[in-house]
Amino acid sequence: MTIYNHILTENDFIEQDDLRYPFEERGLQFGDGIYEVIRVYDGKYYLIDEHVGRLYRSAAAVKINVPYKKEDMYKRLDELLEKNGVEGDAKVYLQITRGSAPRDHAFPADTDANLYAYVKDLPRPTELMREGVTAITQDDVRWDWCYIKSLNLLPNVLAKQAAKEQGSFEAILHKNGEVTECSSSNVYYVRDGSVYTHPAKKNILHGCVRMRIEAFCNQENIEFNEAPFLVEDIQYADELFLSSSTAEVMPILKVDGQTVGDGTPGPVTRTLQKCYEQEAGIPENKSIFSSQSATD
Amino acid sequence: MTIYNHILTENDFIEQDDLRYPFEERGLQFGDGIYEVIRVYDGKYYLIDEHVGRLYRSAAAVKINVPYKKEDMYKRLDELLEKNGVEGDAKVYLQITRGSAPRDHAFPADTDANLYAYVKDLPRPTELMREGVTAITQDDVRWDWCYIKSLNLLPNVLAKQAAKEQGSFEAILHKNGEVTECSSSNVYYVRDGSVYTHPAKKNILHGCVRMRIEAFCNQENIEFNEAPFLVEDIQYADELFLSSSTAEVMPILKVDGQTVGDGTPGPVTRTLQKCYEQEAGIPENKSIFSSQSATD
Repeated sequence: MTIYNHILTENDFIEQDDLRYPFEERGLQFGDGIYEVIRVYDGKYYLIDEHVGRLYRSAAAVKINVPYKKEDMYKRLDELLEKNGVEGDAKVYLQITRGSAPRDHAFPADTDANLYAYVKDLPRPTELMREGVTAITQDDVRWDWCYIKSLNLLPNVLAKQAAKEQGSFEAILHKNGEVTECSSSNVYYVRDGSVYTHPAKKNILHGCVRMRIEAFCNQENIEFNEAPFLVEDIQYADELFLSSSTAEVMPILKVDGQTVGDGTPGPVTRTLQKCYEQEAGIPENKSIFSSQSATD
Repeated sequence: MTIYNHILTENDFIEQDDLRYPFEERGLQFGDGIYEVIRVYDGKYYLIDEHVGRLYRSAAAVKINVPYKKEDMYKRLDELLEKNGVEGDAKVYLQITRGSAPRDHAFPADTDANLYAYVKDLPRPTELMREGVTAITQDDVRWDWCYIKSLNLLPNVLAKQAAKEQGSFEAILHKNGEVTECSSSNVYYVRDGSVYTHPAKKNILHGCVRMRIEAFCNQENIEFNEAPFLVEDIQYADELFLSSSTAEVMPILKVDGQTVGDGTPGPVTRTLQKCYEQEAGIPENKSIFSSQSATD
């Protein structure tokens, strides 16, 4: 995954090799910043309004001044793709920190925020979306304000690593048995054709794809319940799936070694994957349904 | 507070201007690292064993390989002061991240940890230790594993900033009314000559000065209780104080605008300040007791 050469900063575009942070950078010493990962299909942004909206909400929550006004941010993000000649599937990582200043917990008096955004090619995880993945469960030890998409991701890193070490794709996080979300995705429980997921309170990230899942459910007459489910409920699930900007909509077929439902991707998950592909404008030849039966 | 020119890295010493982190650095993108702040008096480390010990414990807790073996770390830290000709009061900031690698939550396969340590002059906060400070109370929204001295400090930053905006020195953090610690210090409640502070469980940092406070109490026959106190108990406190490597032992005289005890630094706090100065080898002419009555 090469990084395209032109990097957007708080001022203008620079070359990849010229972008380096000094060591008294608040992003590095405090995780004092926020970020977004935005999906690009065929050279076009998907859910750009949702991501840009959340970026400004995260910034406001931690009182970081975004260097660009919203309309300029859209323009700059478009330029990022244009300048780099991005035509395929990719992701943009955009980060804003409070800036570089002598180390002190409280905000520096007059430091400008540091921004950078870069773009990388990212093929869709087609096989995983088709075949499904496995997950483990982990205590959710994160802070109370996970609705802020901040750079404080150490607990997420540790949970994802635990999953990886156990041969799983994701870690399903729970507080005292109540499922919140995964280490880098939202998670959904399906029973009797209805979808359940943790309410968008302060303790989970309000995923951009999660917002669309709700809309797709409404559109398809699938009941969407913002109601938490328990780890112990998973044994009764017909389906379980996760969503994120890079994983899209992905079936979970096993949790902690136990099979979910009948062990295959279920009809609700498949319907939502189709809605996603349709909205994101995925061409037929790149669809996860193109080389297999549409009935599974 | 100038940074001395010689910076220790995972390999060797380099010049300050040469130390820059690339942008796909896990410390910057995930806060995936740990740190220590070590106090130096008259060019000599104070509590170096406690800090180095905790550094290795934090690293083990998040599975980061410290680039130096313990005995080499001591040698390197001594060289840091020697090379820079540090003779006065200072602090060393030392940070280790999991390294720089293409962004992915799980640990990179074979990335070496990045380390840097630099030293800055730091005069003792003499006036604040003499006169005392004020504090506010704040919800403790941090993660469950604050015993790890990690780079995930955004909640601490926000709490300290809230204190600053209200003209206070610190924010006393509490979970549902039970005081844990402050944004960057431990906190203690004194009643009837006994000291109370939150047990050294996973949800607070096990402060190096906190360890010495316990020892000083034992030495001075002051009862030291690892028992949590409540925000609502503060109105009954005879004294309240905080401790950290940069604040040492500091009286808190007001909390949320309410006077603590009789509103002056109390005898237990003063005794512990004396013990600290004695152990740290503070010379008479730099003592906070030198230019005022020792009876207050």
